[in-house]
Amino acid sequence: MAAAARLVSTTLARSSSSSLAAAAAASASAARRPDLLASSPRGFSSMADSIQRSGSGDITRVDEVGLEEVPDVIQNYHLCVVKNRRLDSDIIAKASQMKIIMQYGVGLEGVDVNAATEHKIKVARIPGSTTGNAVSCAEMAIYLTLGVLRKQKVMDTAVKRKDLGIPVGDTIFGKSVLILGFGAIGVEIAKRLRPFGVKILATKRNWSSDTLPCDIDELVDKKGGPEDMYEFAGEADIVGIVDHKFLSAMKKGSYLVNIARGRLLDYDAVFNHLKSGHLGGLGIDVAWTEPYDPEDPILKFSNVIITPHIAGVTEYSYRTMAKVVGDVALKLHSGEPITEVEFVN
Amino acid sequence: MAAAARLVSTTLARSSSSSLAAAAAASASAARRPDLLASSPRGFSSMADSIQRSGSGDITRVDEVGLEEVPDVIQNYHLCVVKNRRLDSDIIAKASQMKIIMQYGVGLEGVDVNAATEHKIKVARIPGSTTGNAVSCAEMAIYLTLGVLRKQKVMDTAVKRKDLGIPVGDTIFGKSVLILGFGAIGVEIAKRLRPFGVKILATKRNWSSDTLPCDIDELVDKKGGPEDMYEFAGEADIVGIVDHKFLSAMKKGSYLVNIARGRLLDYDAVFNHLKSGHLGGLGIDVAWTEPYDPEDPILKFSNVIITPHIAGVTEYSYRTMAKVVGDVALKLHSGEPITEVEFVN
Repeated sequence: MAAAARLVSTTLARSSSSSLAAAAAASASAARRPDLLASSPRGFSSMADSIQRSGSGDITRVDEVGLEEVPDVIQNYHLCVVKNRRLDSDIIAKASQMKIIMQYGVGLEGVDVNAATEHKIKVARIPGSTTGNAVSCAEMAIYLTLGVLRKQKVMDTAVKRKDLGIPVGDTIFGKSVLILGFGAIGVEIAKRLRPFGVKILATKRNWSSDTLPCDIDELVDKKGGPEDMYEFAGEADIVGIVDHKFLSAMKKGSYLVNIARGRLLDYDAVFNHLKSGHLGGLGIDVAWTEPYDPEDPILKFSNVIITPHIAGVTEYSYRTMAKVVGDVALKLHSGEPITEVEFVN
Repeated sequence: MAAAARLVSTTLARSSSSSLAAAAAASASAARRPDLLASSPRGFSSMADSIQRSGSGDITRVDEVGLEEVPDVIQNYHLCVVKNRRLDSDIIAKASQMKIIMQYGVGLEGVDVNAATEHKIKVARIPGSTTGNAVSCAEMAIYLTLGVLRKQKVMDTAVKRKDLGIPVGDTIFGKSVLILGFGAIGVEIAKRLRPFGVKILATKRNWSSDTLPCDIDELVDKKGGPEDMYEFAGEADIVGIVDHKFLSAMKKGSYLVNIARGRLLDYDAVFNHLKSGHLGGLGIDVAWTEPYDPEDPILKFSNVIITPHIAGVTEYSYRTMAKVVGDVALKLHSGEPITEVEFVN
């Protein structure tokens, strides 16, 4: 994993396509799962298109800088898209011309927001609802759900053993699904699950203040607050995400899918509920530590499947986010209002 | 694989629960993928419930018979649910009291229908739209589609190598999906894909004669006949099933999913299109021979995934079909009209 932060400046010279590609790779590397878009050039060209589209009057330079060089050069740049590691207060203090630090995605783990605020630097993230992130994560949640219900590992073993017609799987049809934390991703999951023939339960801190762009009552059969999660757990067959103490309240044989954050699950509780059979299956895109030990005992259960933290990692979401980064760089240069991103400070 | 056909008689004695269970196992073994429900007792009890519900006046006996004994005893029985092997004309000729030969599912590979007709024996199958079969197959098609798009094999390798955030997958969102043969399963697939944000193309021999219980125009963006399949292939990103000559008409990089019959795909054409990269991925629940050789070269492509012919194999579909068999047995005994199944002769 290369240790690099990459910077986008709006003041120097017009960038070539290749340097834009480098910047887009850098943007990608600051995303939820960063180091990998470098092998996928399509997202870059969207960003290059977006920046070059703005006409001959714009001069935008995009540089890729190794992390160790960042303290020496950061004062030259106006916009920064960081890699998935902390841009700490020492580095931020040196960013004397910096206008915006931009997260390539939703999660802000990589940025010391307080330090940025102190130095009058705006910190922005790209809301999942406007890029492909929520859509990509929702599709992944459904993939994991189907994989757990159909017993993916047992299917693989059946193929190797030349068995046919086993295992007898389970359907989403007829199930009750509990989505804990009904945000942008939850909405996209619910929309897609609706025609599968399910009852949808969801919890959310505040339903009324919401501006979700859809009719919640058509998507959700039973709404509750965080305080209802234990009661709802007893009704659900499939649960979106879950925290400590929650497992034993779940129905026996129910399934657990986590595409949020690995630490939302209590390891020992999950392990013990899998061992006892209380938990019917587990599908996770995020683990307790990452990358996760492939030899971890929890992965030995035949009803556990894991994917490498790629719920939001698709051509679609990366391409959309790359375009947002490009648009923000152009607007920063031209002085237009920046509306594509969500400023957090 | 035990060589057994199992018979249900409506004339002898009331069956015990255990003999009903045996019969249901037999029913299961005549299904799309038969030999496996024996390990899954829930379906049996539904059938037992259904038969016992009919009250003390009914006398139904259910026997499990080894295939080699069938010719000697078949004359004693009125209803037969065969295992997934051919009930040929010699055996059918001996079935002097037989009223109904029943397929545990949709496919009639196991029954010599002409011989049955000749001997005035009705042959029935259970339509997928009234049991869980179409629903189960549709869920499986979506699982395979997501598995191919997200590069299931590459994800598994990434987990083992402790890579994170790779591979960059693809979304269903934004794709065009072509469903060849828009029957009961196609309808269920289209209903579920609709909120994923796709364009749906479908071919069907005769749209007008159809009594599909839904608004086709809301589900399908572009309808065609079998003659349109090559033209439609050029538009689609994901294809439901496919026959010979079709592959090269498909868009470069498109995905192919087959849950119908393995021989609908031309092996050499598929192999060559995978090798050239014209085909972006393949997800199959059915193979050219079954069980399929796990060492077959086509399975070595990292963008090919296979499941062990379990698209229709779920608790839900097996339970529902077991109940249908039980209901048919009761109605045959009482002389009521049998409406749950589709007679083919």
